Order: sequence, then C-alpha cells, then structure tokens
Amino acid sequence: MPESIWSYVTPGIPDELFERLPGIPMSKCETRLLIIGQLRLRANSVLWDIGAGTGTIPVETGLLCPNGKILAIERDEDVAGLIVKNCRKFNVNNVEVTVGSAPECLHNIADKPDRICIEGGRSVSEILEYCWEHLQIEGRAIATTNSLEGLYAISASFAMLQARNVEVVQSSVNRLETRGNRQVFAAVSPMFIISGEKL
Amino acid sequence: MPESIWSYVTPGIPDELFERLPGIPMSKCETRLLIIGQLRLRANSVLWDIGAGTGTIPVETGLLCPNGKILAIERDEDVAGLIVKNCRKFNVNNVEVTVGSAPECLHNIADKPDRICIEGGRSVSEILEYCWEHLQIEGRAIATTNSLEGLYAISASFAMLQARNVEVVQSSVNRLETRGNRQVFAAVSPMFIISGEKL
Amino acid sequence: MPESIWSYVTPGIPDELFERLPGIPMSKCETRLLIIGQLRLRANSVLWDIGAGTGTIPVETGLLCPNGKILAIERDEDVAGLIVKNCRKFNVNNVEVTVGSAPECLHNIADKPDRICIEGGRSVSEILEYCWEHLQIEGRAIATTNSLEGLYAISASFAMLQARNVEVVQSSVNRLETRGNRQVFAAVSPMFIISGEKL
Amino acid sequence: MPESIWSYVTPGIPDELFERLPGIPMSKCETRLLIIGQLRLRANSVLWDIGAGTGTIPVETGLLCPNGKILAIERDEDVAGLIVKNCRKFNVNNVEVTVGSAPECLHNIADKPDRICIEGGRSVSEILEYCWEHLQIEGRAIATTNSLEGLYAISASFAMLQARNVEVVQSSVNRLETRGNRQVFAAVSPMFIISGEKL
Repeated sequence: MPESIWSYVTPGIPDELFERLPGIPMSKCETRLLIIGQLRLRANSVLWDIGAGTGTIPVETGLLCPNGKILAIERDEDVAGLIVKNCRKFNVNNVEVTVGSAPECLHNIADKPDRICIEGGRSVSEILEYCWEHLQIEGRAIATTNSLEGLYAISASFAMLQARNVEVVQSSVNRLETRGNRQVFAAVSPMFIISGEKL
Repeated sequence: MPESIWSYVTPGIPDELFERLPGIPMSKCETRLLIIGQLRLRANSVLWDIGAGTGTIPVETGLLCPNGKILAIERDEDVAGLIVKNCRKFNVNNVEVTVGSAPECLHNIADKPDRICIEGGRSVSEILEYCWEHLQIEGRAIATTNSLEGLYAISASFAMLQARNVEVVQSSVNRLETRGNRQVFAAVSPMFIISGEKL
Repeated sequence: MPESIWSYVTPGIPDELFERLPGIPMSKCETRLLIIGQLRLRANSVLWDIGAGTGTIPVETGLLCPNGKILAIERDEDVAGLIVKNCRKFNVNNVEVTVGSAPECLHNIADKPDRICIEGGRSVSEILEYCWEHLQIEGRAIATTNSLEGLYAISASFAMLQARNVEVVQSSVNRLETRGNRQVFAAVSPMFIISGEKL
Repeated sequence: MPESIWSYVTPGIPDELFERLPGIPMSKCETRLLIIGQLRLRANSVLWDIGAGTGTIPVETGLLCPNGKILAIERDEDVAGLIVKNCRKFNVNNVEVTVGSAPECLHNIADKPDRICIEGGRSVSEILEYCWEHLQIEGRAIATTNSLEGLYAISASFAMLQARNVEVVQSSVNRLETRGNRQVFAAVSPMFIISGEKL
C-alpha cells in the first residue's frame, strides 16, 4: 500500500496540501485546529458540516474519526466536487457530501448528529436552530464567523436555544510567511468560533 | 469500566481539567492545539517533551498516540509529580517522566525520538542542539517561547542545525471569559511556536 | 518654569506615569492612542468623557486641545479625585470633573459636546443615546468595551441612532515586558473601539 | 481660507485620504498611531524619516509639529513625488523630501535630528547606526518591521548602540471592513515597532 499523503494522527494539515477552487473559502490550518478542538469528537461521532467549502473540516475530522461519519452539506455543485476530491486525496472514506441548501436539504439526512459544525450558509441562525433540533442530547454545535452580524446571530441563537457551556474564541494567529526574499509576519484572518452544548 | 474524564478523540482539553501547581506554567488550550498541530505525530511516535511543566502536552499526545511513547523531562521533582498526577487523571499510560536537567539527563534515555517538543529549560539552544543530534531522520522538533531572546535563540539554532521547512507561528487568541457578571474578551498569552524538520 | 512631566506634543503617555488606584480601570497606552485617533479632536472641541476612570483620556485630550474643554464624568468620588490628581500632575487645566451617575448627572452640564467618549457606565446604551441627543451636528461619539454584550449594545445603539460612518476597531497589541530577568511578549487586553458620526 | 482636508489636532488620518501608488507600502492608520506615540515629538522636533514610502508619517508629524522640521528620505523618485503630493494635499509645509539611498544621502543633511523614524531601507542596521551617531542627546529612534530578520537586526543594533529604554510593541489590530454586503473583521498587517533613547 502506498503511504498516504497525510500519515499523521494529529490534525493541522498544511493549507497548501488541499485542492482549491478560486474564491472558495477555506478554514486556515490554525483556525481549523481551534475548530477541531471545540468539536470534541468521539470515535464514532456523526458530524454535520454545513457550508463545508473546500472540505478541510470533513477531511480532518474524517481522519480523526475513522469509525465516525461526516455529512458535508454544500450548496454549490462544483464546491461539493471539490470536497469529494479532497477526501479522495487524503484517502478519507467516511464523508458523505450532500449538494443542497441548508436547512431545507437537511430533511433528507437520516443520521442524527452528535456534532454540528456550521462554517457558512445564507442564514446561520435558521441553520443553527434547525440543526439544534436534530442534535442528539449531549451533542455539541460549533459555528464560525468573521463578521459582527454573524457573531450576533450565533450568540443570540445559542441563547435562545438555551445552549449550555457556550464558549467564544477568537483566533488571531500570525504566521511567518515568505514574501520574495523576506520572511514577514502575516495575520491569518481573525475568526470567531462559538460553541455550545445541548444538555 | 468507568468513563474516562476525557473521552474524545480530538485534542484541546480545557485548561481547568488539569491539576495545577501555583506558579507552574501551563500551555493554554488554544496554544496547545497549535503545538500539537505542528508536532505532526505518528501513531507510534517517540516524543521527547522537555520542560513539560504541568504536563498538558504529555497528556494530550499520550492520548493521541496510544502506541507511541512520550518521555517527559522535568527539572523539578514536584512538577514531575504533577505530570504523573495529570497522566493518571486522564488514564494516560505511555508517558515516562524523568526528573532531571536537560540536556545532561537526556544521556540516559534509550529511546531515540522522532518528535521533540521543547517547552522550557535553562538554555533552549543547548537543549535543541543536543536533542537534534538524537532526533531520527525525518523527525520534527518544536520549540515554544514567549520571549524575544527565546525566539532569537531558537531561530538561530534551527538555522545552524540546517533544519528544513522551518515555520514560525505566533498564537494570539482571545477568549470570552466570565469576570463577575460580565463576559469580557481576554487575551491568551501570545506564544511563538517554531518548528523544523531533520531531512 | 519647571519642565512639565510630559513635554511632548504627541499622545501616548506611558501607563506608569499616571497615578493609579487599585481596581480602577485604565485605558492602556496603545488602546488610548487608538481611541484618540478615533476621537478626531478639533482645537476647540468640547469633549464629554463618561466613565473616565483613571483619567488618562482627559489628560491626553486636555493636552492636545489646550483651547478645548473636557468634561469628565465619574460616578465614584475617589476616582473623580484621581482624575483631578492626574490632571494636576500633567498640568492640565481644561478638564472639569463631575461626580455623578450618567446619564442623570449630564442634565446639569451646560456645554454641548462635539465629541463624546464613553469608557464605562452602568448602561452604555442609555448613556450613548442620551449623549447623542446633546451631541452637536458633525460631532463624533466613541465607545469602548471589552465585552460581547457591550459590543452588541453599542452597535445596536449606533444603528438605532442612525449614526454615520460607524467604525469598529479591535486593538490587540502585544508588548515586550520585563518579567524577572526575561523579556516576554504580553498581550495588552483586547478592546473594541466603536465610533460614529452625527451628520 | 478654505477648510483643510484634515482639520483635526489628533493624529490618525484614515488611510483612504492619502494618495497612493501601486505597490508602495503605507503605514496603516492604527500602526501609524502607535509609531507616533513612540516618537514622542516635541513642538520643534527635527525628525528624519527614512524610507518614508507613501508619506503618512511626514504628513501626520508635519501637522503635529508645525514648528518642527521633517526630513523625509526616499530612494525612489516617483515615491518621493508621492510624499510631496500628500504633503500638499494636507497643507503640510515643513517636510523636506530628499531623494537618495540611506545612509549615503544622509551626509548632505545639515539638520541634526532629535527624532528618527526608520520605516524601511536596504540595511536597517547600517541606517540605524548611522542615524544614531547624528541623533541629538536625549533623542529617540524608532524602527518598524514586519519581518523576523528586521526584528533581530533592529534589536541587535539598539543593543550594540547601548540605546536606553528600548521598547518593543507589536500591533495586531483588527478592523471591521465592508466586503460586499457583509462586514467582516480583517487584520491590519502585524508590525513590530522598536524604540530606544540616546541618553
């Protein structure tokens, strides 16, 4: 068997190992690590990943939970194809990609999640509230945003849903990057990660 | 069998779950996630963790690599006891704690590492250079620091050792924390994480 | 004439030059610079500074606008005394300190402001809305907060008041500080600075 | 007399008010405020600004020190023209632009500085050391960098020159910016600001 492109047991796959499509957002490595930390996955977790974009969270979580199941929801067909491509690239077989608009398309998904990750979507509140209803007891939901409206909407939804142990983390990591023949500190886009539990 | 205190497959154990000793440094959850990401552990990695402090890295990496081996080096006997205590608390059985001053005490360790994590120590350069010599080919070394002198020393050592793929990440995460009846954003102490490979 | 303790034309007085009282908040130098930048003071500005705390904004703005007038409002009598003390220390003569609870105590202030700075107070929304009514046309209001509730309340109030050119800046500066015989990077507490104009 | 484009006594001119040239670096508003704070200008300061780029520091300091003199040094003739243009735009008359490569071109400047600001240049150490020699006693020098090499070089030079009260500040401000119909937090490029005094 050929060695896989990623043979490590730890998350944090470098950004440049993923296939990209222009304009399609990607959770950067450092932000992704913080998201994964907040997800607190179990070995057999069922994760709904809404607005999965480039598919970095499905790939990383698929690798971390080989006995789990990741349901990636993506509105755009090309982007859904990108997720599939990235899963193949990393030999990830437990990700199912659904093309559709959340929350409507979620009706068709039989597996009830114990983990939810909302990375995007037209109406984050509506999606979060729909997902929450289907979230198993003791389940966790995570939503990420880089906007003030998003932060408000997610916080308000978590409060309304009476989520427990709500946490807000704002990542603002700097990386030394090569620019020409210099190495400069560049900021990884700041991102809010909000999590809550259904108890 | 009773459920463990930490039954998740992902790293990112909340800080407050660890036993603490006053004045003993601890890698905060968000910083720890970035360190673990940089370590890129294999299932059977042998990790030397120098200046292990509270023992958060031994615990997290011990859980992530059940077939690996973690050798935690700590100068202070009480702090070494704290690491043992935290490993027991999290049911981690593959961590061996050595009380001693690096790099001298490293002579006695038979297992050659493929991963090195330097979290502290009197002379980070001396320790890094000693460890590097014992690091397996294709191994990775990580060092963390919050000081400018540390950043210089580590960068200079990596350059001198001709480490490849050197990366510098600076974490500066903010967390929403409860202060009285308010929730305020507080900064997690900024930390530089420098990594390099021996090829 | 003896040289003043601060003989510079630029803002950014080092924190340690101010008299302090235990537990009384102080806008740190770097955050203060961002607040002052957002205030965009005129030579003859009338500034209401609500919740002035240690008095760093009154001192700095008093020095920058010798022909202006700063009205510092502070609930606590001891803290008001601290502001007076700091103004004297820096030879600032155009600051008037009012002891009282905003917004009630503002009724007695004759000078209508063209600049408002809200650094604290029981109900930031109520204070902002009261002040806004008295703010001169083309005036600017600034409010600072380190809490999520504060950020929400201020943004919602500015929206309700139809403030123009609303800006949100989040400072998260790191400083090299001396700890024992080491110099470590320490984060200055992150702070949101929200500003808007009345046109 | 027509009202000036900037009629405020405080620094912090919005970035978009400056004329720009593609590819020419500009100190962003928030970073500029921190630089100006570190400069601690006197009313009659003589400031050498090396690698002045877009000219934001000459404009702001020219406005703050109407009785002072700013000598802006810029290698590139077009960029020097940009500085002149920006000074005219803001009615700043006390800035003298010298086209030339530092430190060589500095020989021709008669006015000895009490303040130095090094924003760029081929060899920051060489420039800093040359300028330091000409710096008046009790003068201050500031250098900015976003690179690790720059940070090392500047720190080492300040140590070698036995500069006093050396301070390092790292700005990492986030701003709410409009992207399409959303408002997202974006990081202002992190920058190190190092300052020292000649006593």
